[in-house]
Amino acid sequence: MITKQLVQHVLKTSLEDMPEDLVTHAKKSLLNWLGVTIGAIHHETTNILLKVTNDISSASHATILGRKEKSDILSAVLVNGTASHIFDFDDTHLDTIHHPSGPVAPVVFALGEKHQVDPKVLLRAFILGCEVELRISNSVYPAHYQNGFHITASAGVFGAATAAGIILDLNEEEMAMSLGLAGTQSFGLRETFGTMTKPFHPGKAAQNGLLATLLVKNGFTSSEQILEAKSGFLNVYSTKSKSEKILKDWGDVWEFNKNAFKPYACGIVLHPSIDACIALTEYATPLEVAEIELTVHPYVLELTGKENPITGLEGKFSIYYTCAVAFLDNDASEYQYQDEKVNNQEIIAFQKKIKPKTDENMAKDKVFAVLQTYSGKKHEVLIEHATGSLENPMTQKQINQKFKNLCNYLLDKNQMNNVIEKMMHFEELDSIEEILKQI
Amino acid sequence: MITKQLVQHVLKTSLEDMPEDLVTHAKKSLLNWLGVTIGAIHHETTNILLKVTNDISSASHATILGRKEKSDILSAVLVNGTASHIFDFDDTHLDTIHHPSGPVAPVVFALGEKHQVDPKVLLRAFILGCEVELRISNSVYPAHYQNGFHITASAGVFGAATAAGIILDLNEEEMAMSLGLAGTQSFGLRETFGTMTKPFHPGKAAQNGLLATLLVKNGFTSSEQILEAKSGFLNVYSTKSKSEKILKDWGDVWEFNKNAFKPYACGIVLHPSIDACIALTEYATPLEVAEIELTVHPYVLELTGKENPITGLEGKFSIYYTCAVAFLDNDASEYQYQDEKVNNQEIIAFQKKIKPKTDENMAKDKVFAVLQTYSGKKHEVLIEHATGSLENPMTQKQINQKFKNLCNYLLDKNQMNNVIEKMMHFEELDSIEEILKQI
Repeated sequence: MITKQLVQHVLKTSLEDMPEDLVTHAKKSLLNWLGVTIGAIHHETTNILLKVTNDISSASHATILGRKEKSDILSAVLVNGTASHIFDFDDTHLDTIHHPSGPVAPVVFALGEKHQVDPKVLLRAFILGCEVELRISNSVYPAHYQNGFHITASAGVFGAATAAGIILDLNEEEMAMSLGLAGTQSFGLRETFGTMTKPFHPGKAAQNGLLATLLVKNGFTSSEQILEAKSGFLNVYSTKSKSEKILKDWGDVWEFNKNAFKPYACGIVLHPSIDACIALTEYATPLEVAEIELTVHPYVLELTGKENPITGLEGKFSIYYTCAVAFLDNDASEYQYQDEKVNNQEIIAFQKKIKPKTDENMAKDKVFAVLQTYSGKKHEVLIEHATGSLENPMTQKQINQKFKNLCNYLLDKNQMNNVIEKMMHFEELDSIEEILKQI
Repeated sequence: MITKQLVQHVLKTSLEDMPEDLVTHAKKSLLNWLGVTIGAIHHETTNILLKVTNDISSASHATILGRKEKSDILSAVLVNGTASHIFDFDDTHLDTIHHPSGPVAPVVFALGEKHQVDPKVLLRAFILGCEVELRISNSVYPAHYQNGFHITASAGVFGAATAAGIILDLNEEEMAMSLGLAGTQSFGLRETFGTMTKPFHPGKAAQNGLLATLLVKNGFTSSEQILEAKSGFLNVYSTKSKSEKILKDWGDVWEFNKNAFKPYACGIVLHPSIDACIALTEYATPLEVAEIELTVHPYVLELTGKENPITGLEGKFSIYYTCAVAFLDNDASEYQYQDEKVNNQEIIAFQKKIKPKTDENMAKDKVFAVLQTYSGKKHEVLIEHATGSLENPMTQKQINQKFKNLCNYLLDKNQMNNVIEKMMHFEELDSIEEILKQI
């Protein structure tokens, strides 16, 4: 009965039932998602996808976000959903390493545009879609993920179908069948990580979930108990599932509120060191710096010990480059990880001043940094919780700045400020056209 | 290295390397597939799919087989692949319960039509696509199937990608990555059986596999070791896999040659009884029959003991109806399982003469039938291997007749004979247009 009960919970939960902090968090998530999507919308991965989908269909129902073209809705969610995960810079539910917005937000944008849906409905659909996929992820994590499934895709199909179901106004039976048809399309192997297929996963999950809902809306039938059935999702896709987690504390505890944003475009393990270097800029100019010593857990250096990175991707795995550029630029956004930037002589020179030191007693998410100047002065910074952690979440201002860093190659200041303003008042808009016409 | 080796085997195998019986069998499989597809192309399940895909795309690259409309290739393979499995009357690799043509043939037809591909290339692609998916099925069956996966879809994605890869002339690296991108999209839960989602599976497998190949052909990247990798298909999708089965006796033993065709549109368990009743028509007219006693294994009656079926679907689970109509019509095709037919008074009256009797010592695939006439005569028939079993395969004539039974609602005699003639000379055609213009 879990699938049916979950559907009942979803259908009875209105936007008014949701706490204000959740609604605000959801709008930040949408803004963050839109930024990472627009940021990668001209990436090679996106270009290949668009070449293929444009050959398939010439419909113009939904915008490819940040491009002057539209596509059919199934192609649009595939392309936008993929773009959002290319930089690996999207949101993360830290308990399950699930990136919740990826499979859900593209559906909200595509259906919202095609059917001119009230943004209040869209926001409710977005929040409930993310909540459903995260609760399902909770029920199969960690066995499911450890076994090799990319949980953002495999559980994401349920989020996409839930959001689409709310927007297309499915009844209880239809919604259960839509989860059935989405669930049977669950997929995604971690073996493909490191290739273009990784970002393809949330896009395809969005597409599979949306297709499920479109079909059921038109009379297609499927199982109404896909989660709990003997040959259903929980039993087949996980060796150890805890089905009770799916409905637990519904309405009191919101999993989607545990969603975190990355301030920096590299692995989370370097974020405390970046915070420290940015904090240290208060005490010295680059020319005054003799060295910056960073005491970190050995694990940090294991993952990021690359001394002479040549490509942007290698830069993400170099504490030397990352800390140097963070001090010089006050940021470590996608811009800082361009190949060109990594080969900048000024930054390469500064990298020699970065001196990591390991200490087993240091927590993995902590760093102690000491800056020494040529004139013999010392300045210390201790970072206990990096920006973007649940204990120290990104501020609205930081999220806005991240959006601008990602989009300024394409949008002017006015456009970016308008988008931010409208995204943060999403439920008050007349339609999402107000946002789309800015990008 | 299995993925790479499999690709190497595939790429080096030409049509000339294949034994003649395999090539003939492949053409029968294509004909059988085309019949079941055209037969269900106006079914409600197909209509819903087409309503949704037509709203998505207006491209006209590939024919919806048996309809006067075309679609884009991704939609066409979804629709045609689904239609082929609606009657559950398609081919079956009995060792793995995999229906091989379903995910592969639609790709062959769609790409063949769009790109005007030489039918020789198409036939090679079809055979190798089926061979690859069946060998992968062998390597994970039975654990994978018992665990809940619909193997026709979950392994079928590989068959679709292989066929598409040959048609689009991928090189070794691309073909391996195409299997990677297809394999990460493996899906299909048996929980959805009994709904429209079951036939959706081979259609969606065709679509996922084709999309993978189209993307890789245009530069998309993926894993080149999707089968054997730690987080790859064999480890994640099966608790017990035998990877050595994938390459075993390549070129000497053809799994696709072990593919069987169903002569009757119901569960295989009733096929011996149908054979027996048709054989008995030689000895008496319906009016002369007092009763037909059928001795079967108890399992047969357990599955098909429904005494008064009302719908066509229920008729498939009634030995009484099925044997009555088989005697009266000399057939048990999809036509015999229409709701109207099941409620025909003449047949209902004859059902009372069907007397099943169980015997634990009877083999499950055997039947002993005794016809008694009102005049006191007795006639006996023993069926040891039903028509369509590997020991007693359907003849070319029977396959042709099955095609006609399925298509005569739509095509005239001339058209049907032309299609059969051309399908059985597939590799000699100039293009598949020769077939398409007949339907």
